Amino acid sequence: VSTLSDEFALIDWLRRRSGAKRHGRVNLSIGDDTAAIAFPEPSEALLTVDVLLDGVHFSRAKATAREIGRKALAVNLSDIAAMAGRPLAAVVGVALDRTLGSSYAQELLEGLERLADQYDVALVGGDTNIWNGPFVVSVTLLGEATERGAVRRSGARPGDWIMVTGSLGGSLAGKHLHFEPRVREALRLHEQVDLHAMIDISDGLAADLHHILDESHVGATVDAEAIPISESARTATGGQSALEHALEDGEDFELLFTVDPQDGARLLQGNPLHVSVTRIGQITEEMARHLRHASGQHSPLIPTGWRHTF
Amino acid sequence: VSTLSDEFALIDWLRRRSGAKRHGRVNLSIGDDTAAIAFPEPSEALLTVDVLLDGVHFSRAKATAREIGRKALAVNLSDIAAMAGRPLAAVVGVALDRTLGSSYAQELLEGLERLADQYDVALVGGDTNIWNGPFVVSVTLLGEATERGAVRRSGARPGDWIMVTGSLGGSLAGKHLHFEPRVREALRLHEQVDLHAMIDISDGLAADLHHILDESHVGATVDAEAIPISESARTATGGQSALEHALEDGEDFELLFTVDPQDGARLLQGNPLHVSVTRIGQITEEMARHLRHASGQHSPLIPTGWRHTF
Repeated sequence: VSTLSDEFALIDWLRRRSGAKRHGRVNLSIGDDTAAIAFPEPSEALLTVDVLLDGVHFSRAKATAREIGRKALAVNLSDIAAMAGRPLAAVVGVALDRTLGSSYAQELLEGLERLADQYDVALVGGDTNIWNGPFVVSVTLLGEATERGAVRRSGARPGDWIMVTGSLGGSLAGKHLHFEPRVREALRLHEQVDLHAMIDISDGLAADLHHILDESHVGATVDAEAIPISESARTATGGQSALEHALEDGEDFELLFTVDPQDGARLLQGNPLHVSVTRIGQITEEMARHLRHASGQHSPLIPTGWRHTF
Repeated sequence: VSTLSDEFALIDWLRRRSGAKRHGRVNLSIGDDTAAIAFPEPSEALLTVDVLLDGVHFSRAKATAREIGRKALAVNLSDIAAMAGRPLAAVVGVALDRTLGSSYAQELLEGLERLADQYDVALVGGDTNIWNGPFVVSVTLLGEATERGAVRRSGARPGDWIMVTGSLGGSLAGKHLHFEPRVREALRLHEQVDLHAMIDISDGLAADLHHILDESHVGATVDAEAIPISESARTATGGQSALEHALEDGEDFELLFTVDPQDGARLLQGNPLHVSVTRIGQITEEMARHLRHASGQHSPLIPTGWRHTF
């Protein structure tokens, strides 16, 4: 990796790389005032942004530049997956810590670009800045809904089964850097069943289920015993139980969705995905949110989860 | 302005404000995993991002929160204008300096929102973070090309007139915070004439003209005497001439475009805009870039302009 002296050299380097690829939907990529992406059919564009901050969302001591670049795109891919949409094109805003040098920026962009290639996402633009502040990377992802429409948070109905992909908890042990965004899984589910509501688990199962319930104006009963608990949640230290990790840890980036019981049963009988699908509870008309324990006792389901505060 | 305790309160506050408005193209705004924007006809989406950094792109000592928020959107509107496109919807990523508190963030978003309303841009999503680092705001703007297509940098042809809106130089004296992005002007020009190439002047006239020339593989001769020099450029202190300010200062956010001479003459005879339009030179087949002085002498046109370096 050669040393690039300034922002323009970095953009040129990125442009040469992205220019070597062809993407059927991209009419104009890096090198103009905006990117241009074809929408040849009537469609619904999906737009999402995530900002990753050095020392907040990642630690340079614990993650490589490539891992950070990968994650910056992966979290946005997970948001598009949550709508059962198709990702198309990304733009990247970066503020580079001057002391890190251009090779760090190049490695970060390579990590991002590699994941973009895997999901057929074009890297179509960016704004590159170098400063004395901590490292910041902001990715905005443009996608589109399928012919079946985008799956919202607001469509859960009383009687729906609550289902989840994969296993939950303990993501900080490593999954948060290497998770596979559930883009293909969401598209597959959207083809096979009528998804009433969906979200990706970024704030934690309990908190994200509350987002669905709040938007859908319904309640839920979750079976504590049914929650698929990850190995990392079982081995995590720090005083919380494995169940608490599965309920409260963020950054699982699994899909949490609701379907009617017939569709739910079909998914359990013949799971069309390469990842597990588990029924963890049911949507209720009553607005309360319960956790039902093996003993038969109920406790309130609390939307805990980390949040930024002033 | 009440004090909001955390990021969720800030998002809720913004959501209530944006929820009160209706935008014909927005199917889903703040409150889901992504925003959803209708593209009811085959179209070309335009996408652009800009990052503003405290101490780099603005100084909190010299600009209010509202001015900074306004500028964060205005620079993106200017990029959509440069394509002669229509802006549609924006997402905002912010990293808030914890010491500034939520009222600062609210004022910033109010400044952004006010300009968004003026340009019929929906604020459809965001990622809000609070940290101990300096303040960062990143705006991504989605727009669309008109039926006539997006105007690229690459279409300048030998013989074209080089034209510019408004007057140039000295933007840092104030214009950079209050400029009106030339969205309507660009759409009007696109209706009236065949725009061959266009860019907005953000790096400075000389540098941005070079972007057009590089992308179009042509040269240019610019008449020094013809350049419309702003009052701020004339009164600026610091050792540079007014002409140098007009050529080299960034952030004018005027339109720089090329048209064939017939179209150029039509614009001069009956300017359809509320802002001046000036012919400043001509595109040449020969790749050289000249500045022609009143004396008849030529000097090289140098693409100076500020850039971030490592």
